[in-house]
Amino acid sequence: MGGEKGLLIVNTGNGKGKTTASLGMALRAWGQGMKVLVIQFIKGAGRDYGEQKAAKKLGPGLTICPAGRGFIREAGETYLDQHRRAALEALDLAGMEIPTRKYNLVVLDEILYAIHYKLVSLGDVMDLVNQKPEHLHLVLTGRYAPPEIIERADLVTEMKEIKHPFSRGIKAQKGIEF
Amino acid sequence: MGGEKGLLIVNTGNGKGKTTASLGMALRAWGQGMKVLVIQFIKGAGRDYGEQKAAKKLGPGLTICPAGRGFIREAGETYLDQHRRAALEALDLAGMEIPTRKYNLVVLDEILYAIHYKLVSLGDVMDLVNQKPEHLHLVLTGRYAPPEIIERADLVTEMKEIKHPFSRGIKAQKGIEF
Repeated sequence: MGGEKGLLIVNTGNGKGKTTASLGMALRAWGQGMKVLVIQFIKGAGRDYGEQKAAKKLGPGLTICPAGRGFIREAGETYLDQHRRAALEALDLAGMEIPTRKYNLVVLDEILYAIHYKLVSLGDVMDLVNQKPEHLHLVLTGRYAPPEIIERADLVTEMKEIKHPFSRGIKAQKGIEF
Repeated sequence: MGGEKGLLIVNTGNGKGKTTASLGMALRAWGQGMKVLVIQFIKGAGRDYGEQKAAKKLGPGLTICPAGRGFIREAGETYLDQHRRAALEALDLAGMEIPTRKYNLVVLDEILYAIHYKLVSLGDVMDLVNQKPEHLHLVLTGRYAPPEIIERADLVTEMKEIKHPFSRGIKAQKGIEF
């Protein structure tokens, strides 16, 4: 694993698979014996999330920190303040863990969504990217990737929704959506 | 888990994340205590694949069968015949396992690529889809999804390449690409 260049990877777009693909990378890297950290900027703990249960079963090689307060569903400053505090805590955690060189892969899940809703600033996220150790693969996910981040990234994929079952009245499915 | 409608899910497009997102779904479903089978139509065993190592470590809840012979790199009938035989074995395996109702999630990885290269026929794959038990989530991945399959699917995502490191001279990375 030594000597390889870590990539800055962006999964963006309005479709499914941004988080799921980063979980797949986490599984693959864990299978290779690498150390993986996933910090979730929007998802919180407590709901019945498959990936959080899986991480507990997998043991110390894969850590998932659900630091968020859910997707933004209403406006209002008090409400947004709670989200902002949660996202800033997630950012602080990332700022502490990324430079430690403990990990081979770090996923900052929905951090781009958090930038879009001004829960965190683009400047703070760029500072974090600048602290990335050479060997570390860093994955940023979420809708609305800013051009500055796309410019900086090595690998950018847009997940585009072609067809979605919610529009056909089918509910979120356990094991698929969560 | 009983009583839910299983979805037909398609991950297609020229970008990364088609297989990786299905592995993420596999991890999530495994975390929910579901039974997962992944049949790889193109990837073979023997190379150093992170997901195959991970599946071995995870135990019986997640099974990955690498039944393929690699991506198509040359023409020639002898060469294509080997691939065709491998893909047909994968198809037979899927045809045996899907109706058993043993699984909650089955991923047929790169089966759409196999249709495109005429390793398997669209008709055979549609027959397989028709055998899907009601509760089963069935995921089909690969470039060049045929319109008949998109029409039939519940959830379709196109993974679109925006920027790829190979074009900048960076090699495939362990834990990320494989």
